[in-house]
Amino acid sequence: MTQKRQLAGDLRISDTGNQVVLKGWVQKRRDLGGLIFIDLRDRSGVVQAVFSPAKNESALKIAESVRSEYVIEVRGDVVKRDESTINDKMATGDIEVLVEEVYVLNEAKNPPFTVLDGEDVSEDVRLKYRYLDLRRESMQQTFKLRHQASQVMRSFLNDEGYLEMETPMLTKSTPEGARDYLVPSRVHQGHFYALPQSPQLFKQLIMVAGFERYFQFARCFRDEDLRADRQPEFTQIDIETSFMSEEEIMAMTERMMQRVMKEVKGVELTLPLPRLTYDDAMSRYGSDKPDTRFGLELVDLSDVVENAGFKVFKDAVTNGGKVSAINVQGFADAFSRKDIDKLTEFVKIYGAKGLAWLKVTEGELTGPIAKFFDADEQAAIKTTLEAKDNDLLLFIADKTAVVYDSLGALRQKIAKDLDLVDETAFNFLWVTDWPLLEYDKDLGRYFAAHHPFTLPQKQDIDKLHTAPEEVKASAYDLVLNGFELGGGSLRIYKKDLQEKMFEVLGFTKEEANEQFAFLMQALEYGAPPHGGIALGFDRLVMLLAGKTNLRDTILFPKTASASDPLTNAPGTVSEQQLDELHLAFKVKNTEGS
Amino acid sequence: MTQKRQLAGDLRISDTGNQVVLKGWVQKRRDLGGLIFIDLRDRSGVVQAVFSPAKNESALKIAESVRSEYVIEVRGDVVKRDESTINDKMATGDIEVLVEEVYVLNEAKNPPFTVLDGEDVSEDVRLKYRYLDLRRESMQQTFKLRHQASQVMRSFLNDEGYLEMETPMLTKSTPEGARDYLVPSRVHQGHFYALPQSPQLFKQLIMVAGFERYFQFARCFRDEDLRADRQPEFTQIDIETSFMSEEEIMAMTERMMQRVMKEVKGVELTLPLPRLTYDDAMSRYGSDKPDTRFGLELVDLSDVVENAGFKVFKDAVTNGGKVSAINVQGFADAFSRKDIDKLTEFVKIYGAKGLAWLKVTEGELTGPIAKFFDADEQAAIKTTLEAKDNDLLLFIADKTAVVYDSLGALRQKIAKDLDLVDETAFNFLWVTDWPLLEYDKDLGRYFAAHHPFTLPQKQDIDKLHTAPEEVKASAYDLVLNGFELGGGSLRIYKKDLQEKMFEVLGFTKEEANEQFAFLMQALEYGAPPHGGIALGFDRLVMLLAGKTNLRDTILFPKTASASDPLTNAPGTVSEQQLDELHLAFKVKNTEGS
Repeated sequence: MTQKRQLAGDLRISDTGNQVVLKGWVQKRRDLGGLIFIDLRDRSGVVQAVFSPAKNESALKIAESVRSEYVIEVRGDVVKRDESTINDKMATGDIEVLVEEVYVLNEAKNPPFTVLDGEDVSEDVRLKYRYLDLRRESMQQTFKLRHQASQVMRSFLNDEGYLEMETPMLTKSTPEGARDYLVPSRVHQGHFYALPQSPQLFKQLIMVAGFERYFQFARCFRDEDLRADRQPEFTQIDIETSFMSEEEIMAMTERMMQRVMKEVKGVELTLPLPRLTYDDAMSRYGSDKPDTRFGLELVDLSDVVENAGFKVFKDAVTNGGKVSAINVQGFADAFSRKDIDKLTEFVKIYGAKGLAWLKVTEGELTGPIAKFFDADEQAAIKTTLEAKDNDLLLFIADKTAVVYDSLGALRQKIAKDLDLVDETAFNFLWVTDWPLLEYDKDLGRYFAAHHPFTLPQKQDIDKLHTAPEEVKASAYDLVLNGFELGGGSLRIYKKDLQEKMFEVLGFTKEEANEQFAFLMQALEYGAPPHGGIALGFDRLVMLLAGKTNLRDTILFPKTASASDPLTNAPGTVSEQQLDELHLAFKVKNTEGS
Repeated sequence: MTQKRQLAGDLRISDTGNQVVLKGWVQKRRDLGGLIFIDLRDRSGVVQAVFSPAKNESALKIAESVRSEYVIEVRGDVVKRDESTINDKMATGDIEVLVEEVYVLNEAKNPPFTVLDGEDVSEDVRLKYRYLDLRRESMQQTFKLRHQASQVMRSFLNDEGYLEMETPMLTKSTPEGARDYLVPSRVHQGHFYALPQSPQLFKQLIMVAGFERYFQFARCFRDEDLRADRQPEFTQIDIETSFMSEEEIMAMTERMMQRVMKEVKGVELTLPLPRLTYDDAMSRYGSDKPDTRFGLELVDLSDVVENAGFKVFKDAVTNGGKVSAINVQGFADAFSRKDIDKLTEFVKIYGAKGLAWLKVTEGELTGPIAKFFDADEQAAIKTTLEAKDNDLLLFIADKTAVVYDSLGALRQKIAKDLDLVDETAFNFLWVTDWPLLEYDKDLGRYFAAHHPFTLPQKQDIDKLHTAPEEVKASAYDLVLNGFELGGGSLRIYKKDLQEKMFEVLGFTKEEANEQFAFLMQALEYGAPPHGGIALGFDRLVMLLAGKTNLRDTILFPKTASASDPLTNAPGTVSEQQLDELHLAFKVKNTEGS
């Protein structure tokens, strides 16, 4: 057949009368009244091919031999279906192809699962036969979306004058990050490359090199224990720019998200995006990545209850903690005591000692702790929480961190249980004014909350040594529907401030200049003010595609133990390969090698 | 300053009278007659900023303190230059900015070399201070070109329905390739990931998965000893497609190259591109990647001289070798005996035992070997080589491979020495009909000339066992100006043929099914006919940018010993890191661990 191939899913009623050549997979075969019907699938979709003895006996004969997932080529005429057989659910449902000629291009064994969406298959089997799993319609759609999103963002960044640049994968292990994946050097005995956790330092060098606007869809690696939303390798949209303010970088990012949302999802995003300071996010949502698709905000009642008769509340405030509550409006009658007991168990996961509650019934607060509050206090509670009849009020009194963690988790659980989340919404928001440093009690020192290159806010620089915990960073995170999409910051661009920062982190000047030698040196040769952002591309695709598992957005992902059931990576290697790398396996429980 | 920043290099005479804010680097400072002139550089180019006591005394004062590569911000008015000071060589040469306000954003130490093009700096120093080296105009241009080329190709592939997809970096080491970079697994003791040498098997799986059209700018890794045009990590434009013929894949690639050449270089490429079979490329150019920007083609004289009186020629043909020559037209008088002696030394590098020569003088062949040929033979030589007065004829008589290697290298050397190469030309061509297999005498077995997944040409499949050396592959290489840009092939898509191929390569059926388990299995579940191509992106950029060193096209390249003078990668790691990987260094000259 020398005729040009057409795509099955693109055929329409207007093609009626045309002869077409199609190539693709057998989705389903049905034998009916001496005829054979095959749903023929290619990358564009599915069309029905009909084999009849009247049209071609030998083609029918061949069709009898094909099974699901065979690869075939057919030539035939596009014809209108009988009214009675029109299928409204298929884009090609009002036509079919009457086959004159058919070739089997390749056979297929009976697949371990059907390639149709909806069949419940264990993830191990899906990953082992990933090439079959990926044939499913929903997987095909996800990777088309992934492609489209990357093209839209690339095109946006190109339009704004950003250059796509590639930083090395074989780099050097540096302190202060997560665990590196290492690559032993054959040439330099005893030396290792590290796979990058992010191109952070390279993108800063690109700024020092004067390119001003850089981006990359960067593969990054972290050898950490994996969770559902983590992979050992992942892709981030990595952006860095010189001479731009925090506001300008955020505005650029917003325009990019606006374009992606419009072109990929058809959703109009209103700019500027909402913002919360880190402190507000914590006190209102108990989370630094709040999901604002539903209410159930935390309300601080410390002032209201600190002098009340309820000792638990009073003590929490007196001991420097706080009392906050959420109002589950209109659902008091939906929660039995037993239900509330379950919520109490739930908040204990987050360290809360207990969960106090009140209901509003005919204007009155009811429940076991109601008696501890006098009329004024009850009125104040109701006013502060805007409580009305049939509202359920849930209180945590504890250390501030515990209050935030437990109520933050509780509001998400309740929203999910009560189906309060608008699943069609895309709620973006910025979280700003992050703390620069976090204190690690176990190690007895400060760590960078983002990374050690983050610029402190100007007004706080003097506090670096005197009150490090109060210093805010010029940093911003972009949150979507309760997920951290990514974050960025302005960077330190003067050597003395970078030295000071390392000092706070416990490095001597000598250590800093040795371990971050090339950065420290680069800052001496005309480094411009710069900053940037990095967004998790896999996660963005997950949210745009409406998926809940990161593995559904990565073509060939790893399992939770960082292995690949398809290729069986990682694998063993030969003695010779180890020899060339000057390496040996450490024998367990013996003294060295 | 809250005014929006403008770009220095974009200012034009039409901006005269405007007040502008500029931010960038001090390219040069000149003090002249109480004024200070600063060439201010940003990513767009350079403009002259003028500081005068009349405009602002304190700005002048600050300008006195700045040196080369300081980062500054200025506010000032765009003014027309005096006629006498207009600089035609600068895009902004007819204007300057009269500065009213200046800030030093960052200082700079005196750089180890100036950032101007043209200064001769050792490559080690350039790499150590890569962030300064990259500030040079020519480097900035190269990476802009690199960005642009990638955008054009991405946009082309997107338009043709290809999806950009990411394959894993942490994969499995497989036999039959170059040496892998290995990544020890922490979780799976004694196991290693391998960094991909190419996404070959994954892109074939993507085809089995039904995506039909895939591309990726894929980072690839080879732990080989490096040459000038090799890097341990490199980028290839990786493309795979289903249901397309060799012709269709080549035509698609041609359209892509046409678009890149037009949009990046403004060059109109005429399609279809020229083609040579592998056999013709070897016999006419002595190379499988011929540079056709000049003539000096090899001409086979075996038939003409096999019965002549010159024993050296006769013996070469009798022993199964051949005699070929190149005609250096019109340059006989340019080559003294001494010059020709040097050429003789040159061809010995390639294994040739000697170089015979003749000149044409007043219609007669002259030179030491002329006497061995009678009049008819001389006439035949002249006719075959189209020899005219003042032509120099250079002959090699040897085994065929030696004739090709030595004359192939000689024609390139002579073309370069005589300046015969049109440096403005972009001569693309396809080399087709490659041999499928190569015999390795030392190992006593066949190896895949491309890779073991290449489809043999249909008519040769029966010869796989009987005459493997005669089997041609469905493979094609794209050559540009004597460089292999890349190559591709149709792939084997049936399991039995793949098994047969592995058998020829010396694998048992069991070994093949074990070592390439996932591929063999995938071929059983409806693998479509497929093929593709991979083009070296670094090399393409090198040729488009008119560079001769691959390192000038890679942002942060490695040296010939695979190290990075900037970051000092590879580096040492801690005992703890090694422990976590269950690894120890092999002690030299002792009996294992």
